[in-house]
Amino acid sequence: MYTLLKQEGEARRGTYTTVHGTIQMPAFMNVATAGAIKGAVSALDLKEVHCQVQLCNTYHLHLRPGDRQVRQLGGLHTFTQWNGPILTDSGGFQVFSLAKLRNITEKGVTFASHIDGHKIFMGPEESMQIQSHLGSTIAMAFDECMQNPAEYEYARRSIARTTRWLYRCKKEMDRLNALPDTVNPHQLLWGINQGSVYDDLRIAHMKQIAELNLPGYAIGGLAVGESADVMYHILEVLGPYLPKDKPRYLMGVGTPANLLEGVRRGVDIFDCVMPTRNARHGHAFTMEGVRNLMNAKYELDQHPLEDGCQCPACQHFTRAYIHHLLKSGEMLGMRLMVLHNLYFYNTFLEKIRAALDAGNFTFFYHDTIDTVSRRI
Amino acid sequence: MYTLLKQEGEARRGTYTTVHGTIQMPAFMNVATAGAIKGAVSALDLKEVHCQVQLCNTYHLHLRPGDRQVRQLGGLHTFTQWNGPILTDSGGFQVFSLAKLRNITEKGVTFASHIDGHKIFMGPEESMQIQSHLGSTIAMAFDECMQNPAEYEYARRSIARTTRWLYRCKKEMDRLNALPDTVNPHQLLWGINQGSVYDDLRIAHMKQIAELNLPGYAIGGLAVGESADVMYHILEVLGPYLPKDKPRYLMGVGTPANLLEGVRRGVDIFDCVMPTRNARHGHAFTMEGVRNLMNAKYELDQHPLEDGCQCPACQHFTRAYIHHLLKSGEMLGMRLMVLHNLYFYNTFLEKIRAALDAGNFTFFYHDTIDTVSRRI
Repeated sequence: MYTLLKQEGEARRGTYTTVHGTIQMPAFMNVATAGAIKGAVSALDLKEVHCQVQLCNTYHLHLRPGDRQVRQLGGLHTFTQWNGPILTDSGGFQVFSLAKLRNITEKGVTFASHIDGHKIFMGPEESMQIQSHLGSTIAMAFDECMQNPAEYEYARRSIARTTRWLYRCKKEMDRLNALPDTVNPHQLLWGINQGSVYDDLRIAHMKQIAELNLPGYAIGGLAVGESADVMYHILEVLGPYLPKDKPRYLMGVGTPANLLEGVRRGVDIFDCVMPTRNARHGHAFTMEGVRNLMNAKYELDQHPLEDGCQCPACQHFTRAYIHHLLKSGEMLGMRLMVLHNLYFYNTFLEKIRAALDAGNFTFFYHDTIDTVSRRI
Repeated sequence: MYTLLKQEGEARRGTYTTVHGTIQMPAFMNVATAGAIKGAVSALDLKEVHCQVQLCNTYHLHLRPGDRQVRQLGGLHTFTQWNGPILTDSGGFQVFSLAKLRNITEKGVTFASHIDGHKIFMGPEESMQIQSHLGSTIAMAFDECMQNPAEYEYARRSIARTTRWLYRCKKEMDRLNALPDTVNPHQLLWGINQGSVYDDLRIAHMKQIAELNLPGYAIGGLAVGESADVMYHILEVLGPYLPKDKPRYLMGVGTPANLLEGVRRGVDIFDCVMPTRNARHGHAFTMEGVRNLMNAKYELDQHPLEDGCQCPACQHFTRAYIHHLLKSGEMLGMRLMVLHNLYFYNTFLEKIRAALDAGNFTFFYHDTIDTVSRRI
């Protein structure tokens, strides 16, 4: 259940209660695609970097190790040893971005596995069944994630189908949650707004899916090719149509600046692979900006990645050591970078929440927006 | 300083006191080649897997980040954040095994870097200077590590040169330790016995290097192509000539069974990349034998890698999860395997020491030798 504690402009400070614990919002989800964070980071490490919610990918886990296997092993919480909330995506995004040779019908999507090419069918019911096996706290509706730009007429027909799919998702989840041996009978279904970059389609679709009175709503199909300004515009357009008493999830976003802009437009929760993916390229996020640790200037630098940072990497290791590890291709370099970046993202949201609590988010926004995403 | 506490047959229970702490012997050193354990394991993690001594490689650190850089950064202890004893090898082994186009003269060895091919010269003085910059607790003498089999006449001339090099090492280390700004002015020099597989050469060389009354002696040039029986034979042949009041280090060895056989023949300390290298191939060491976690039979296995094991991996994660991580190429799989394998090796030595303390090492040996290295 979402509780709105405070509002500053459109920015919202709230809490979301689940059977696996309460999420302080705005929040950032840490992505553990195949049931593990990239960079040798375990669910236990996540506690140390102030993670609140782990996101796992339905498509990946369905292919390997298999959702039935995860179910037999007690569900994702037992499997990964993360005892807090877990959100699973629907598989839709990966089906449309990773899989080959897909074929969409009213029933669902037939596609070829990106691992071994074998043919798989996934529709709303299959996605719900897989997520039920995984036993996540929050399951996402199965939708079509269009690439931007999409033709208006295609987008119009696509969102109509996504709405019909949502009703099927709801019906199937209700059925699954009522079964006697369901891993998590309290699983929550969040809907996903689509509509490409068309204001009227976005609004129409949002109105349709709001009718289901789901416990949460995501804004999907953004950060998939369009400019950041278009994304911010869609958020502003949708604002009045998003239920105030439900969390708002901006999928797959983004840079620290994107998060600030999102919160400013009423977003409650985000996920992004950026903290892990950029770690691989040596990029460390700090409040002063983004440092490239591959840079030779860090060779003899005895500072931590970020001065004053209390993350497991910064408490002990220097830029010089991490620079050396990255240059040498030592896995430890990647691990320390990921620990820092996740800690940065999670505590960046803590700072945003503290600013909202104190009623000075607008000041924090202006004080931070220009520095936090620049290259230094 | 080495203190022999107890003896059972040739097996020795002792302690070795250094400025960086006391090593309980027999001991196993954990290999952090480039200043980091493979598998995203940090010096802080080493404490949790009961590591006593970290081994770093002079050759690798000389090439990257550079020993002068490490010195500027405060030495290896500050650089890696490992505060216990560190042993550095001399670089000799890598010069003879990794480097290309080497040319040996009385002065030392010219070779091409395996990273970028640039020409480097290393002799006894250079090796001591590099190790002094690294500031390790124990520095190894610069020797020629011959491949087995080596021609008798070549081996005879080689050990004579290695002895002359040892005198130069000793002289250079005395000079370096006396400098006002040396990282570790208490650095210890251990000599290395060579002589290929020839009993008389091994004995003659051991007698020569024992004359220097160094604080420790290694047996080198084994586990480089000859059979295990030849290695055990050399240990037996050398036994009477090894100073009783100095630790005995068998370099680059080995399987758990090799360690048992080594201890039984008077070895006090070992190092080997096996716990990390085999982790990469999915091999988990246990007291019952070696498990291959890539095997499909672990897909739904909810046991830890080893029942009852208190390592950071076994305390939380199942074989099924680790199997999945390894199959998915997730770094976390490698990290959990390495943590387990290092914990296994370090606590295996703890078990050996406890058996020696209790006077039942012979029983422990017979009870363990056939099971511990078998494939299960």
